[in-house]
Amino acid sequence: MDKPTVERPKQVDSYRHDKQRILARLRRMEGQVRGVQRMVEEDQYCVEILTQLSSIMAAARSIGLLLLEDHIRGCVLTAEDKEAKIQELTEAIDRFTKSVG
Amino acid sequence: MDKPTVERPKQVDSYRHDKQRILARLRRMEGQVRGVQRMVEEDQYCVEILTQLSSIMAAARSIGLLLLEDHIRGCVLTAEDKEAKIQELTEAIDRFTKSVG
Amino acid sequence: MDKPTVERPKQVDSYRHDKQRILARLRRMEGQVRGVQRMVEEDQYCVEILTQLSSIMAAARSIGLLLLEDHIRGCVLTAEDKEAKIQELTEAIDRFTKSVG
Amino acid sequence: MDKPTVERPKQVDSYRHDKQRILARLRRMEGQVRGVQRMVEEDQYCVEILTQLSSIMAAARSIGLLLLEDHIRGCVLTAEDKEAKIQELTEAIDRFTKSVG
Repeated sequence: MDKPTVERPKQVDSYRHDKQRILARLRRMEGQVRGVQRMVEEDQYCVEILTQLSSIMAAARSIGLLLLEDHIRGCVLTAEDKEAKIQELTEAIDRFTKSVG
Repeated sequence: MDKPTVERPKQVDSYRHDKQRILARLRRMEGQVRGVQRMVEEDQYCVEILTQLSSIMAAARSIGLLLLEDHIRGCVLTAEDKEAKIQELTEAIDRFTKSVG
Repeated sequence: MDKPTVERPKQVDSYRHDKQRILARLRRMEGQVRGVQRMVEEDQYCVEILTQLSSIMAAARSIGLLLLEDHIRGCVLTAEDKEAKIQELTEAIDRFTKSVG
Repeated sequence: MDKPTVERPKQVDSYRHDKQRILARLRRMEGQVRGVQRMVEEDQYCVEILTQLSSIMAAARSIGLLLLEDHIRGCVLTAEDKEAKIQELTEAIDRFTKSVG
């Protein structure tokens, strides 16, 4: 990719109401990732580490769904060029469900 | 659940050869989670945050697959009670693919 | 749940333009499912059957994404009660990505 | 694809005990796919079709997990070249969880 699609990141207020909640969940998720590091350092049992990784993925998925909802409400529905937003949204859901799997 | 299934976590060496690689990936993942926090604090665009979350899930998934492989090689194949290990493994894969989706 | 949420299924034309494409893909998917039945009947190798099942899931996912896009364009954006549609949509994406994983 | 990767499919009996169960589930899945075709033909509501697709993916996933378990028990554990089987298995799980998402 040689053309920068985004020079400066756009700023939005679509998730303003959920911002503190999202940040709290991300901090908890950071703690979970550090917890998994500790488990690996201590040679803990693989299946338990896998379970923790599953729980991190579930956390990321759940934060993503919240953002998706806010995005549809606050960006897609209010956009001038709705068709462009729908394309972008579908690609985001595609990436989101793919990485997920 | 009131009975502790695991009093002290079992210690294994099944992922010994991948330990440093797994730790490096987990540290990178921790950085990604902090990066997402920054994006949210700066009100960055929802779709870009979603893309980052997708990438964290993909990272967790890929670390999980590595652990799964090591687990099968180092724990399931060498276990005395193989049938119990297979049950446990299937449940782990189930949880892993579910949280995923 | 004792109250029937849908007495008669709603009829929509949101996916009218993709209808033939969706039907063609569903017919191909039906053929894939029958192909897997044959593989199982012939005791074919588990890993190859798994690969076929993966491919069916990918087909279902891809049809789902197309429907999702049409739904957002043709039902959510045009709805009178947009907030109710967004809730319903988020739950559909949630179920969709969960079954997926 | 013009070069046959598999001349004759390998035949295994690893899922012999689950064969009828797997076939019954695949037949039910075939019926579900036909049901979705009917829903599309009748212009039924997109969200309900999505829910049905989610349920098909969940069915495929659940059959896959059963096959995976049988495969580990009946093919991987009993293989002579266990390392090759583990590689193959990990790739199958990778594909399986990816298509899933």
